[in-house]
Amino acid sequence: MNLLYTLDLLGTAAFAASGALAAIRRDMDIFGVMVLGLVTATGGGTLRDLLLGDTPPFIFKDETYLYLSIAISLLVFLFHHTLSRLTHPLTFFDAVGLGTFVVIGTSKALEFQFGFVGSVMAGVMTATAGGMIRDMLSNRVPMVLQKEVYASACLVGGILLTLLHRSGMPRTFALLASAFTVITLRLLAVRFNWSLPRARYGNAQH
Amino acid sequence: MNLLYTLDLLGTAAFAASGALAAIRRDMDIFGVMVLGLVTATGGGTLRDLLLGDTPPFIFKDETYLYLSIAISLLVFLFHHTLSRLTHPLTFFDAVGLGTFVVIGTSKALEFQFGFVGSVMAGVMTATAGGMIRDMLSNRVPMVLQKEVYASACLVGGILLTLLHRSGMPRTFALLASAFTVITLRLLAVRFNWSLPRARYGNAQH
Amino acid sequence: MNLLYTLDLLGTAAFAASGALAAIRRDMDIFGVMVLGLVTATGGGTLRDLLLGDTPPFIFKDETYLYLSIAISLLVFLFHHTLSRLTHPLTFFDAVGLGTFVVIGTSKALEFQFGFVGSVMAGVMTATAGGMIRDMLSNRVPMVLQKEVYASACLVGGILLTLLHRSGMPRTFALLASAFTVITLRLLAVRFNWSLPRARYGNAQH
Repeated sequence: MNLLYTLDLLGTAAFAASGALAAIRRDMDIFGVMVLGLVTATGGGTLRDLLLGDTPPFIFKDETYLYLSIAISLLVFLFHHTLSRLTHPLTFFDAVGLGTFVVIGTSKALEFQFGFVGSVMAGVMTATAGGMIRDMLSNRVPMVLQKEVYASACLVGGILLTLLHRSGMPRTFALLASAFTVITLRLLAVRFNWSLPRARYGNAQH
Repeated sequence: MNLLYTLDLLGTAAFAASGALAAIRRDMDIFGVMVLGLVTATGGGTLRDLLLGDTPPFIFKDETYLYLSIAISLLVFLFHHTLSRLTHPLTFFDAVGLGTFVVIGTSKALEFQFGFVGSVMAGVMTATAGGMIRDMLSNRVPMVLQKEVYASACLVGGILLTLLHRSGMPRTFALLASAFTVITLRLLAVRFNWSLPRARYGNAQH
Repeated sequence: MNLLYTLDLLGTAAFAASGALAAIRRDMDIFGVMVLGLVTATGGGTLRDLLLGDTPPFIFKDETYLYLSIAISLLVFLFHHTLSRLTHPLTFFDAVGLGTFVVIGTSKALEFQFGFVGSVMAGVMTATAGGMIRDMLSNRVPMVLQKEVYASACLVGGILLTLLHRSGMPRTFALLASAFTVITLRLLAVRFNWSLPRARYGNAQH
């Protein structure tokens, strides 16, 4: 499906840019910028493929993802001052990546006969694990565990796709509807500054 | 073996609670609480299965572990104030998990024809890697590397089980004796506040 | 090839020592020292084998690596005061490990029919991922992402080996020439204090 592949590459580029920017903010050298770009863009899908037992992971079967992530990281390294003014388009393409990665991950797990929770997890992981590794390498608590409706948009998309798949919807429709739902939720969350509930932990030292 | 499966689920629940509590202490949102609960309870066994080449990992073959971990994490999210008063039962069930996870991991590696060190490592990893990932996601040095006789109880259990296995003991006896040893050592360590030796590093800045 | 295996063990020992020293600096107990020694020495190759789908990873097929890493870690635990005076030999053997790990990783990926970027990545990862996990367990930003020409020496070695392999050079020559190049570059970088360019991020708070 060519549209999905195109969206996948757009998302990969946006995720690579976000990783490269994080590396620059942490004062990493050019190697660090490439590693964080690569890991953010491809880490989630790679972890998913390891868990599915589908080795080698997708990035080693179609090196387009690697070339694209490295190229974007180098561009960000050179032109990050310009880029930091482009937060609007970056947020948009990041949301595209989020939606696309979720549906690719969930649908692949469904093909591998994973159960309900496992398939949703595979989708959420595809979309969020790269960013978590990026944050762990940056010595921070992963943003996705603390802030904004980022992961929940993924959860909704993974659950929706699993339900549509089980109810026998045509695959293309199910994929696009789920991806579109994630992208819309994510953009609304950014626009209206939604966030998830937290347990109030009080003033205790921790 | 039904007793071992029961202990395994008890341990999974205790580990999930410990992960969820850590997430609440770090002010994570409800998604973070679920992720840390899941990772703490199932991360060690998942990593073990990846290393054994037994994919997909156990959690995707029997989703009970996933449902249980998520349910416990949500309960902790809702009732953590009550829970923080239950340190005694939590410590007890955590020790049960430790013993059970070690013997499950070691015995699985022995079945896969791993050598002595590899089998012990598989057991220790099953019991401790989930907590290490929890601490890395919380941006802390893993507790198990710094404090208390936690990992060494696992080491003793893994070594004991490997020796009993090699000496031809009946499997059930070997498993239960080893798990019981780990649980006892762990509870004694908590009770008497044992800790492992450290190299004295002096006052150097680091 | 016996020379390569000897260099591999030398490198493993040097990497284990670096991991054990990092653990001591972070005030870890004896278990932490063993874990960081093991992870630094064998983590990169283990991750590579997971990504290649070659499970169980090499350390479980030939336990020499495990015994060696544990023994070195315990020696470092006991004699770290002496060891900290031996920075010159340690740097040398660490460079040997770097060169050897890169060529082992890259050549294994080439055997598994990986593409250009994938093979270079496999080599760089074999040499650097163990140290990255060591730093993540120590709650620091991985040194390799920030400082010195460490990873780029690996990149050069991996690229050189892939080119020599494709141009049909005899395997032994290609391996030794590439390893020697990495070792030389690394030692020159230490000697002359080379470092990679960074993007200037300005004074912004982050």
